[in-house]
Amino acid sequence: MKLIHHTQVPAEVPQEEARGVTVRWVIGQQDGALNFAMRVFEVEPNGYTPRHQHPWEHEVFILEGHGQVLGEGKWHDFGPGDVIYIPPQEEHQFRNPSDWSIKFLCLVPAPAYCGAG
Amino acid sequence: MKLIHHTQVPAEVPQEEARGVTVRWVIGQQDGALNFAMRVFEVEPNGYTPRHQHPWEHEVFILEGHGQVLGEGKWHDFGPGDVIYIPPQEEHQFRNPSDWSIKFLCLVPAPAYCGAG
Repeated sequence: MKLIHHTQVPAEVPQEEARGVTVRWVIGQQDGALNFAMRVFEVEPNGYTPRHQHPWEHEVFILEGHGQVLGEGKWHDFGPGDVIYIPPQEEHQFRNPSDWSIKFLCLVPAPAYCGAG
Repeated sequence: MKLIHHTQVPAEVPQEEARGVTVRWVIGQQDGALNFAMRVFEVEPNGYTPRHQHPWEHEVFILEGHGQVLGEGKWHDFGPGDVIYIPPQEEHQFRNPSDWSIKFLCLVPAPAYCGAG
């Protein structure tokens, strides 16, 4: 078993084009987790993740803050306790138009280990 | 895309032996998520999940409250923001010896869809 506080994992800057975003890979291949990975994202005010699409899904849980997610061509508001499922191949983006940071979990299946986002 | 607050999903009582536990399946097969599922558990004071082991892993994030998890034969304290990875076949149990409820995410890979816990 592994038990850590998520802040014990270093926050990295994603390789893809983004602004004010960090990611912590808190559970993944390094732990023997071969099916899916857990990441913790933080997005600063005025920050955003890449607008993209890819063959894998996202399972997201909003921990802190209020922001917006692009899905099905529209922006949707989200806040703490919200759950977001983005199916494979759907274009998506997260952005933070608020004055406070956003923190959320975003889990991806193993095929996404090879890519970013 | 699906975007809901986790409390919009009904809280169910798990089929396995447990006390004071509810689970909300917030992302799963019903959403087309074929690789892994997201569940939100709540454990009341003095409650506990089953002590068991199974062929699939757990990826856990503690949202609220302070409790204990059994892993590698010992009880470990946890609190908000903690991340727990329980590998396949490791005996485990969650319990709440505190005066306040615990809430945590517990994600499981697709093979666990057929079983409980």
